[in-house]
Amino acid sequence: MIKIITFKLSKNCYLNSELKTKIRKLRISYPKHKGIIIVIFAGCFFQLIMDKEENLLSKISTPEDLRKLEPSDLMQVSAELRQFIIDEVCNNPGHFGASLGVVELTVALHYVFNTPYDKIIWDVGHQAYGHKILTGRREQFSTNRKYRGISGFPKMAESEYDAFGTGHSSTSISAALGMALAAQLQGEKRHVVAVIGDGAMTAGQAFEGLNNAGIGKSDLIVILNDNNIAIDPNVGALKEYLLDITTSKTYNRFKDRIWKMLGVFGKHSPDARTLAAQIEAGLKSTILDRSNLFEGLNFRYFGPIDGHDILHLIKVLEDLKRIPGPKLLHCLTVKGKGFKQAEENQTTFHAPGKFDKETGEIIENTADNKIPTWQEVFGYTVLELARMNDKIAAVTPAMPSGSYLLPMMHEFPSRTYDVGIAEQHAVTFSAGLAAQGIIPYCSIYSSFLQRAYDQIIHDVALQNLPVILCVDRGGLVGSDGATHHGFFDIAFLRSIPNMVVSAPMDEIELRNLLYTAQLKKNHSPFSIRYPRGRGQYIDWQRPFLEIEIGKGRIISEGSDLAVLTIGQPGNTAAAVIKKLSAEKISIAHYDMRFASPIDRELLHKVFTNFRYIITIEDGILSGGFGSAVVEFKSDNGYEAEVRRLGIPDYFVEHGTQDELYRECGYDAEGIEIAIREMIVKIEG
Amino acid sequence: MIKIITFKLSKNCYLNSELKTKIRKLRISYPKHKGIIIVIFAGCFFQLIMDKEENLLSKISTPEDLRKLEPSDLMQVSAELRQFIIDEVCNNPGHFGASLGVVELTVALHYVFNTPYDKIIWDVGHQAYGHKILTGRREQFSTNRKYRGISGFPKMAESEYDAFGTGHSSTSISAALGMALAAQLQGEKRHVVAVIGDGAMTAGQAFEGLNNAGIGKSDLIVILNDNNIAIDPNVGALKEYLLDITTSKTYNRFKDRIWKMLGVFGKHSPDARTLAAQIEAGLKSTILDRSNLFEGLNFRYFGPIDGHDILHLIKVLEDLKRIPGPKLLHCLTVKGKGFKQAEENQTTFHAPGKFDKETGEIIENTADNKIPTWQEVFGYTVLELARMNDKIAAVTPAMPSGSYLLPMMHEFPSRTYDVGIAEQHAVTFSAGLAAQGIIPYCSIYSSFLQRAYDQIIHDVALQNLPVILCVDRGGLVGSDGATHHGFFDIAFLRSIPNMVVSAPMDEIELRNLLYTAQLKKNHSPFSIRYPRGRGQYIDWQRPFLEIEIGKGRIISEGSDLAVLTIGQPGNTAAAVIKKLSAEKISIAHYDMRFASPIDRELLHKVFTNFRYIITIEDGILSGGFGSAVVEFKSDNGYEAEVRRLGIPDYFVEHGTQDELYRECGYDAEGIEIAIREMIVKIEG
Repeated sequence: MIKIITFKLSKNCYLNSELKTKIRKLRISYPKHKGIIIVIFAGCFFQLIMDKEENLLSKISTPEDLRKLEPSDLMQVSAELRQFIIDEVCNNPGHFGASLGVVELTVALHYVFNTPYDKIIWDVGHQAYGHKILTGRREQFSTNRKYRGISGFPKMAESEYDAFGTGHSSTSISAALGMALAAQLQGEKRHVVAVIGDGAMTAGQAFEGLNNAGIGKSDLIVILNDNNIAIDPNVGALKEYLLDITTSKTYNRFKDRIWKMLGVFGKHSPDARTLAAQIEAGLKSTILDRSNLFEGLNFRYFGPIDGHDILHLIKVLEDLKRIPGPKLLHCLTVKGKGFKQAEENQTTFHAPGKFDKETGEIIENTADNKIPTWQEVFGYTVLELARMNDKIAAVTPAMPSGSYLLPMMHEFPSRTYDVGIAEQHAVTFSAGLAAQGIIPYCSIYSSFLQRAYDQIIHDVALQNLPVILCVDRGGLVGSDGATHHGFFDIAFLRSIPNMVVSAPMDEIELRNLLYTAQLKKNHSPFSIRYPRGRGQYIDWQRPFLEIEIGKGRIISEGSDLAVLTIGQPGNTAAAVIKKLSAEKISIAHYDMRFASPIDRELLHKVFTNFRYIITIEDGILSGGFGSAVVEFKSDNGYEAEVRRLGIPDYFVEHGTQDELYRECGYDAEGIEIAIREMIVKIEG
Repeated sequence: MIKIITFKLSKNCYLNSELKTKIRKLRISYPKHKGIIIVIFAGCFFQLIMDKEENLLSKISTPEDLRKLEPSDLMQVSAELRQFIIDEVCNNPGHFGASLGVVELTVALHYVFNTPYDKIIWDVGHQAYGHKILTGRREQFSTNRKYRGISGFPKMAESEYDAFGTGHSSTSISAALGMALAAQLQGEKRHVVAVIGDGAMTAGQAFEGLNNAGIGKSDLIVILNDNNIAIDPNVGALKEYLLDITTSKTYNRFKDRIWKMLGVFGKHSPDARTLAAQIEAGLKSTILDRSNLFEGLNFRYFGPIDGHDILHLIKVLEDLKRIPGPKLLHCLTVKGKGFKQAEENQTTFHAPGKFDKETGEIIENTADNKIPTWQEVFGYTVLELARMNDKIAAVTPAMPSGSYLLPMMHEFPSRTYDVGIAEQHAVTFSAGLAAQGIIPYCSIYSSFLQRAYDQIIHDVALQNLPVILCVDRGGLVGSDGATHHGFFDIAFLRSIPNMVVSAPMDEIELRNLLYTAQLKKNHSPFSIRYPRGRGQYIDWQRPFLEIEIGKGRIISEGSDLAVLTIGQPGNTAAAVIKKLSAEKISIAHYDMRFASPIDRELLHKVFTNFRYIITIEDGILSGGFGSAVVEFKSDNGYEAEVRRLGIPDYFVEHGTQDELYRECGYDAEGIEIAIREMIVKIEG
């Protein structure tokens, strides 16, 4: 296929590099075309005629194949890889912008480093699609994030090229340092590279890793992938700092200017020469070594460089391979690079769902989307409460859009704090607010809340401070998989004294719990967990009702057996129970609401009246809600048979939420089977 | 009382400040003496005669009283406060060096700031003895760390002057920022000061706090108390950095030199003047603003200053009060200041136990100290294993002495990693080592392991990596109290799939578990928890025996009831059972060893043969070991009566371990009572 492109240049273009630059840019824009180039000069109009080139990506099964190509081929590989990601992700939703932003970096890393012997650790890992495609998973990539398909994150069990599993942010430097020192102990000359975003760099663990690596015993390479955004725009001093060293008065430029000036001085006076030398030495030893935050931590700092200029990237990475000690390469990239809409709407295109790859239009799933998500209900309810109570504030560690705190941020900017990817800080910061009379709603995804476990215990619960922990995405989250499921929160929170552990069955209950928690008489460490996804009601915006702390409620009366649920599985159970009532199976259903304090009065009633009980929770069974019920049963000498449904003792992988509920046996079918099995026993 | 001091000065001393300085120093050395000074000149010998002065400290009930004094009195107050701490802590053991190091800073802060309206947050808090003594707790101070006495750490419930409870490190900046913003929201003009050590500054949370505070919305003051040591000497790049800016080529000195040189250039040539101005502007805007790590994070950096020069401290703090925005004051202090032996042996005198306040000699409790601590057994056993298996490494987050890893560090420096106060990093770093074939023994105190909960789940368990978590100080730790008890580890670890959760009953078992965990066939995420304190055996160094994973053992046969223990309470139980056997009470005792995987075969046997069972653990009851037993019982339809002994659902405070075991009901007496109560039921 022949393509003809006409363009205009200035008259003297052949005298300078303008033509060359233009042609290079066109090459990038039309990666699938290559070969004979005929330039037709006509005044200052040119025509570039390009022939279609063979596809290179399809021939890359492993990075070995990539490394056989010429550097000049790599722009094409990058363009093809980018297009492959667009073609796949527009149909099979996943993380999008992050992978587009590191296409060139991915190609360059596998080109320069001898993977899998050399190790690349992708921090967070949602940017690793290109890496997966280049490392033997191109054909499986259509199963990305699907049930029993490949994972959306690097995973050691999946490929030897996935040097370390990720999903949560800011672990890469720590893991890479461990690997580098393990190689050293074993006499291996292995390169280890951590690729970390500027967002992930704000989390404390990244700093801990830098601080430890900076003592210089390893040859670690850290690549700071600076796109000035995480999921939401970055916040914090580090962001300002990085922006600052990448703007016009760059560190490097200033360094050059100083050098030049010192030269000028040198010429002016012979005495000055000595002084100039002194200044130079001083600058080198004192200022330049420290004028950079990373050099302050003993990392040699390189950059900033353009992370999309693959040839330059390769050159720099080759150089870095030969420089001993810990090094940081500051790469500037554009999240969503190469897909216009993704570059322009970076938060939306972080994980856009299905979209039209030509227009960039998001394809909404229109079936049930009038029912809002739990997150929307949370966000609007907190805003509503904040209007009523001026002591209320909201805190999020870098998830204002995911947690739905943007409406509150918009209306009450001074009472809504995005503290960056920093869950530990978020919780202690909230404790600080609470210690001085503010009521913080601290919203954190369940699996990330694990990061703040000590702070919940030490700063909130031990001091009995009224921090309201809004535990978002509790339970199985779906396609993000094992790293992101909220497996553990009910179990780890209910062990903590003073802590109220609650989970609403529906959005009305969520609203009422959010309302209840801020009432002065209820001030206490208070957790409210709710799942990912949509709720039950279109008309969720009902008047607030106080819920008595530690009190469950009855959903249906019954006589054959009792079902005790906490949180959202209560709805599935209610539907099953309703269905079975047609068969004259009479089931009492209690929505317990609280795992701690658990409703002892209600439990006494249930254990007194029923010999057969089923507990259902969207959380780990070991130590979870059902465990609290059997502790009660045992402590009080009851002898009912209790069947506990929930997440079993292994790490459930990815899939749709429904697929995973089924796997764990608490989807509608699983609940029905459990009930029928118990009924057989009762009748037997 | 008259005191006469003779000293020698150089001949010309009266011409310079030597005499004045000498007298000032003597004043500090003899704080209790003041008044008429008679200087007798005799050649170059002098005599200083001082009269005993009234005690100022005894008149300070609150900081209000302190603020009534003249600045010139504060040296005496500091000296008296220091002496008071020495007099108290030598008899009633506690943290020592840290509080001595901040005597002047403590006095200065309460003098300059309007506490308790202004808030001072003491990071970690073991340096807050001076603060406690000045804020109404001088007379109670003799009860420090004792059962029902005052806490060894700041505690909100104890005093309005304790603005935020601490105990774990690196929370102060986060909490202070929360308080500062809460004040802002409420229109309060309150100063908030966080005092944080250079050790605590290495933990990620401190960085998260700085990064968030650096966006400049608050007037936070952070005081970096830089004594170049935590409990053990500090490690990491930050330490090098801080040392660097405090050595001869200091930042400030260099800044001055550059300025001076630019002046010299300016004189040499008129052209140069413009260039000099340009350089100056450039230096100011580009280098000086960033030449400091903290200024890189948008904190205005002041210092370093001498943290023992109280008059200067007061001046600087007064200045800082008036400067808006986030500020960091770098104070250099000496840990143990004013007590020679503490200055010289800073690790020993961190918390020295009883000592002779004249000689500094540590007074050993000789009663049972031939029996080593669990920590010693751990440390020497890991060393022994490391000699046998060259894949073994050890990791500690800043606790090489407390964890007893110094012998290993000495013999295998390249295989023993002190990663700084950085539990998150420690665990992921260990996972990185394990991913590349090294077997890391990662030793962390139970309560600090809470900091690494997410890393245990996400980096170790999910990837099934053979990291051996050595959970030190599991259970009640004694006088450090609520912040330091290892309440939760059994509960939070047993919820995690793939994780082996074990606790040895004695040191022989500890050795065997440590041995077992490194055997190739047992490679898995593996936790081994053991308590603070001394073990059972002098002859603990017995040959290694493999323990089958998930298998308990029988300690004594019996028929009336069964006692199931995990960990060290097994010894108390065994003694009680032995005692009761004299009364023909026949009790079967099983040391379960593992909370996960729990010994199902053994439990089937126990529940089949016994109707009455007691479980005992040194950990929280909600979700803990006994909870696992009743989950098993319930899941398998057994109907035995189970009584669970362990830590109840509140935060147990400080006291001796024995006092606290009694309070929780699993000391010998509590166990005996529980058994007798059950026997009554059996017989009834």
